[in-house]
Amino acid sequence: MKLERKAEIIAVGSELLLGQIVNTNAQFISRHLAEIGINVFYHTAVGDNPERLKQVIQTAQQRSDFIIFSGGLGPTKDDLTKETIAEVVGRPLKLDDEAFESIQDYFKKTNREMSPNNRKQALILEGSDVLPNRFGMAPGMLLEHESRFYMLLPGPPKELEPMFENEAKPLILEKLGSREKIVSRVLRFFGIGESQLETDLEDLIDAQTNPTIAPLAADGEVTLRLTAKHADQAETTRLLKETEDRILERVGEFFYGYDDTSLAEELAKACRSKGMTLAAAESFTGGLFSSWLTEMSGASEYFKGGAVCYTNELKVSAAGVSEDTLQRYGAVSAQCAKELAAGIRVKTGSDIGISFTGVAGPNTQEGHPAGKVFIGISVKDQAEEAFEFQFAGSRSAVRKRSAKYGCHLLLKMMEK
Amino acid sequence: MKLERKAEIIAVGSELLLGQIVNTNAQFISRHLAEIGINVFYHTAVGDNPERLKQVIQTAQQRSDFIIFSGGLGPTKDDLTKETIAEVVGRPLKLDDEAFESIQDYFKKTNREMSPNNRKQALILEGSDVLPNRFGMAPGMLLEHESRFYMLLPGPPKELEPMFENEAKPLILEKLGSREKIVSRVLRFFGIGESQLETDLEDLIDAQTNPTIAPLAADGEVTLRLTAKHADQAETTRLLKETEDRILERVGEFFYGYDDTSLAEELAKACRSKGMTLAAAESFTGGLFSSWLTEMSGASEYFKGGAVCYTNELKVSAAGVSEDTLQRYGAVSAQCAKELAAGIRVKTGSDIGISFTGVAGPNTQEGHPAGKVFIGISVKDQAEEAFEFQFAGSRSAVRKRSAKYGCHLLLKMMEK
Repeated sequence: MKLERKAEIIAVGSELLLGQIVNTNAQFISRHLAEIGINVFYHTAVGDNPERLKQVIQTAQQRSDFIIFSGGLGPTKDDLTKETIAEVVGRPLKLDDEAFESIQDYFKKTNREMSPNNRKQALILEGSDVLPNRFGMAPGMLLEHESRFYMLLPGPPKELEPMFENEAKPLILEKLGSREKIVSRVLRFFGIGESQLETDLEDLIDAQTNPTIAPLAADGEVTLRLTAKHADQAETTRLLKETEDRILERVGEFFYGYDDTSLAEELAKACRSKGMTLAAAESFTGGLFSSWLTEMSGASEYFKGGAVCYTNELKVSAAGVSEDTLQRYGAVSAQCAKELAAGIRVKTGSDIGISFTGVAGPNTQEGHPAGKVFIGISVKDQAEEAFEFQFAGSRSAVRKRSAKYGCHLLLKMMEK
Repeated sequence: MKLERKAEIIAVGSELLLGQIVNTNAQFISRHLAEIGINVFYHTAVGDNPERLKQVIQTAQQRSDFIIFSGGLGPTKDDLTKETIAEVVGRPLKLDDEAFESIQDYFKKTNREMSPNNRKQALILEGSDVLPNRFGMAPGMLLEHESRFYMLLPGPPKELEPMFENEAKPLILEKLGSREKIVSRVLRFFGIGESQLETDLEDLIDAQTNPTIAPLAADGEVTLRLTAKHADQAETTRLLKETEDRILERVGEFFYGYDDTSLAEELAKACRSKGMTLAAAESFTGGLFSSWLTEMSGASEYFKGGAVCYTNELKVSAAGVSEDTLQRYGAVSAQCAKELAAGIRVKTGSDIGISFTGVAGPNTQEGHPAGKVFIGISVKDQAEEAFEFQFAGSRSAVRKRSAKYGCHLLLKMMEK
């Protein structure tokens, strides 16, 4: 069995430090390395400055044995990743004939004249394996030197990403891969805060080794990433399943799906599997819920449409709320939410109607504070229901949270 | 004059190293520091591991005198940024009463129970200035210690970004600012590609020194960031204005606004200033356009609402399209777009009606390929117009691009 590798990623480019671009390469490479069981312990970004780059490389040599560089392989004087690594590790650069030919071809194909500095792009660290670049000129490379691996990749994501997946990953698996099978799964929760979830699972999280359990909160949702490793694939899966079952025993009521799914996607699936159709009357959410439900292809199977009834007049004319309700209870009320839901269900001929009425903020409305929200649900042959919430946060957060709760409530209802 | 600062940004969180999220915080902070003339020389990301974090802090101390941390201020045991810095710099943590109160308030407001580990979030490094968190619980802080500055910020961008702009930036300017006045401005363009824009401005971009001109393409829009520096504020502004004028002379027809604005926000402003109201009938965009227009507070002044008419039945019943039109021309047609726009305008009593009908994809519809889109516009006492597009890209890209073109067309119309 091969050694456990300690990897780190060094991005070279002053445009990162000026905030002109975001370092998506580090994320991309990290995600792919995690999948093949290689641990990344550091990301660094440094500018096009040979002195600082040199020091960053030396720091990396002290703590990592697989160092991956992105950027700085271009034709200009600014681009000095190769030259600086050559100096630090004491390996010369030499012209790679194949890479040089492919650069010449590229210019012929695009009918442009090659400038002398493009020759620089065909230089490689002596003794390294070359990674061809199918979407640009600079080749990548992998060098093994004094029991450390150095991988050099081009900066533009549209060159780096295919090169990594098609050329680099197989080479890494061959030369550095671990024999352990890694399986990772994300559990998604809604309606429970991060700290509550952790409190409920404290002993499991404290005792985590294999699988590891990593909680993350974003956009009003909490996720747990479970990652299991084992030489035997079946055992990896068993380990994962065992931990997942323990977690869901305690907080299963808040669980809604795996990996990259969303509440809207799960709701779409549920509607499809029950053969039910949906319509929405949206006041302060202004179409947000509907736009989520129509984001998936095939939405017409379960979503009919609805009304964006921002004004009170439209609540009456487009969604069938009575004038009397608006006068007696106001638009921000359980009664209005119920009538909106029932009205839009009937008008669209759907099985389920949902409504959103409330105060997105930042100002108060009808005497209600920002964040006061009513969600109405109407199902054929059942009494309408209304759910009241008081959310905190910005206007945008209140709208998103409300639309998510709408999905959540419908999912819970359909589970029954 | 104050010293030239050497800044570096350290992001703490294993989710970065696993590639689960991208480090947008480093970009955000870098961009804002560049604007106020503070040079960032390194970005680092490290996991939730006290030993490695400690070493990263020690490396930073050797090369930087302004160290900014993002992440690791949460309530859980994983969150250890404060604790580790306290150990490295030798400053104790103490409870900040105001921060603790604000956390308690947050729980009261949202009707949830505070778990004991939330108290940990109110601990601050003794002697630091506290940065209140308006969108979450963990306060930020700035500590000056042995001629170095340490700034701690929460990890979630929706907390970090407003905290940085409103609380941190003024404090940095006061305590660490340079005397050179830096003015930066973003010009936003729609309807022109990045390479076309660069070709049109090639000589200006090549000759750039002060102001610098940085192009960036994202989400179908192109932006140019101009940044000028000068000891004299008036001169900085003059330099910026001069370059902006030259740019707009050539590509002004595609320019729509400054800095963080959006097409929807500019459209909202235009409607307000002309006192005109708007309604939308959305088929394949499913409420996306409406949700953008209602994202801004005070939307009721210019936006009445509309219909999400995903099905043909709703195009007829909710937006007044004739059955005959659907049969003769189909839903994906100029004629249908015009009737939708006119119908929703009349039904909502608005000054302007806009409609979106087309094929979001990935499948074809009525024989039309994915990306075929008609946008209809109807203005009182004018003949309806329809605009035809063929977009490329994913379902999500086609929907967004269509909603943006809707804003763009209305803006152009209102300019006349």
